[in-house]
Amino acid sequence: MATNGEDVHALNGVLSSQPSNNHTTEEALNKHKVSSATENGTGPAQRFTFTGQPTLEDIRRMQAEFTDERDWNQFHQPRNLLLAMVGEVGEVSELFQWRGEVAEGLPGWTDSEREQLAHELSDVMIYLVELAEKCHVDLPQAVLRKMALNRLKYPASKVQGSAKKYTEYKD
Amino acid sequence: MATNGEDVHALNGVLSSQPSNNHTTEEALNKHKVSSATENGTGPAQRFTFTGQPTLEDIRRMQAEFTDERDWNQFHQPRNLLLAMVGEVGEVSELFQWRGEVAEGLPGWTDSEREQLAHELSDVMIYLVELAEKCHVDLPQAVLRKMALNRLKYPASKVQGSAKKYTEYKD
Amino acid sequence: MATNGEDVHALNGVLSSQPSNNHTTEEALNKHKVSSATENGTGPAQRFTFTGQPTLEDIRRMQAEFTDERDWNQFHQPRNLLLAMVGEVGEVSELFQWRGEVAEGLPGWTDSEREQLAHELSDVMIYLVELAEKCHVDLPQAVLRKMALNRLKYPASKVQGSAKKYTEYKD
Amino acid sequence: MATNGEDVHALNGVLSSQPSNNHTTEEALNKHKVSSATENGTGPAQRFTFTGQPTLEDIRRMQAEFTDERDWNQFHQPRNLLLAMVGEVGEVSELFQWRGEVAEGLPGWTDSEREQLAHELSDVMIYLVELAEKCHVDLPQAVLRKMALNRLKYPASKVQGSAKKYTEYKD
Repeated sequence: MATNGEDVHALNGVLSSQPSNNHTTEEALNKHKVSSATENGTGPAQRFTFTGQPTLEDIRRMQAEFTDERDWNQFHQPRNLLLAMVGEVGEVSELFQWRGEVAEGLPGWTDSEREQLAHELSDVMIYLVELAEKCHVDLPQAVLRKMALNRLKYPASKVQGSAKKYTEYKD
Repeated sequence: MATNGEDVHALNGVLSSQPSNNHTTEEALNKHKVSSATENGTGPAQRFTFTGQPTLEDIRRMQAEFTDERDWNQFHQPRNLLLAMVGEVGEVSELFQWRGEVAEGLPGWTDSEREQLAHELSDVMIYLVELAEKCHVDLPQAVLRKMALNRLKYPASKVQGSAKKYTEYKD
Repeated sequence: MATNGEDVHALNGVLSSQPSNNHTTEEALNKHKVSSATENGTGPAQRFTFTGQPTLEDIRRMQAEFTDERDWNQFHQPRNLLLAMVGEVGEVSELFQWRGEVAEGLPGWTDSEREQLAHELSDVMIYLVELAEKCHVDLPQAVLRKMALNRLKYPASKVQGSAKKYTEYKD
Repeated sequence: MATNGEDVHALNGVLSSQPSNNHTTEEALNKHKVSSATENGTGPAQRFTFTGQPTLEDIRRMQAEFTDERDWNQFHQPRNLLLAMVGEVGEVSELFQWRGEVAEGLPGWTDSEREQLAHELSDVMIYLVELAEKCHVDLPQAVLRKMALNRLKYPASKVQGSAKKYTEYKD
């Protein structure tokens, strides 16, 4: 689902009608500015954070409504959604493919490239959420279980800071 | 990050110490049973839903702590995380590759296969969230913008229920 | 590298200058017709085959010349080529994503859709070959070794015809 | 299809029975040594090349025999093969995921890592070839057409050596 950056300007009215969204586009924009300021060294390094909403369940419900309204559940079987997700991962890859190493915060990327990336990452997320729903996987809880497993599998005391250890543990 | 289904039994203590998790493993399990009951036709078709937590910001923060504690930020540049996500999408694909069509709810899949899928979908989610963080993309808000764009791009009145129209609109 | 089906008509002169190609476009076209006839049941089922050329080394050499002439080796490091290949696999997936099960020979696909698929599969092949070259992997010989390993790993007498055995062996 | 590097030693007898392979394992090995010598600066930079065989049609035929002997055509529908290919691309990605930039020739990689990569690239190739066969795409000829299109689309005189132009042309 490649989208045109210019279409974003058409979203004002639509976004304001989102029932579960307490954050305006302007707030999100300000947030982004703060993080840019931090990058420029004007303050102590501050971790980039997400806004609290929508939750995964919000996204699931909104996408379910979107699919229902278009009578598209007939096309949204698990393997179709999986292939759609693979397609979107491919679109993310295309944005990174000729750049060599890319640093945190994407220095040198234009606003248009950042927005394009935001769209493609969102498409991966949307299909991932719908795939989990159609597979009856409670994704938020599954992530919690997997992260607990990861903490057991890679004890901080054993794997800390060594690329060699890290690779061995990963393999 | 393939994990062994048997390791799940080691998680009780770990899970109970999750600060932002209000749902116990047992609750999640019961929820899963309810959805199975619905599949078996013992009640009206009820849409599968996710639990409300963790949120995407919860997942981001927990994964950031995990990475910090292991001094692994040096390995988690955007392109490394992207390739890791591609690897996990590959693992999801391996679970679906020889099955032909798979219906909603994964009828006929064993509990072990379902848990394996839950793990792999979670790995995709974890790397997607960390990739977005390292790219300074506010993923929850980006999804909201993208879904609004999708509603504009595919008006329900025009694309409803026709595979032909659907394909044309998608292409 | 999505390409427009209409551009194919501009290729006559270009194709005829291919040094290592002993097969004309017309021959390839006739071959395709034969296979279509077989599909339509006008003869005994005949296995679809490839023409003998270009070989993998031909493709490697032609793509190396293409890259050299454009001074693009500076962009064609291994990880860049890998991400480009992921992008092309994504484009193949998009052609299959909303179709449900697809049978051998792609019944019902239009000529334009088949040509599009031929283009995207070719893009995967081109990047796979260049990735192997830049990694100094002799791909034809590596395939030979891997196929020999597969014959050892999956003995025909043990895995024959059983989906269950097949899955167990694969896992 | 991850395989163990140690199994390679079991291949001698099997490889010598390959009907269409005129190159011995030893020749391939010597070839590899030559390229390593070049990397070490003991001679003028010499482009890495592939051996001439097996051709794509050889690979197609050998894989068709492999599939026939195991009665596995029932599992090798186009979408199954596509998902299998995605899985193998994921395995290639896992070999590159935590390394940061990787230079041509993979300096610093162990022999075991190189062999693992050779296996995974081969798996992508094998599934790509079988996918093309089952889709009735004459892959060698399709690649020839696509490369001719690429030469038309990216004229050497216009796109030479500029990352900016390159990106614009690619997009």
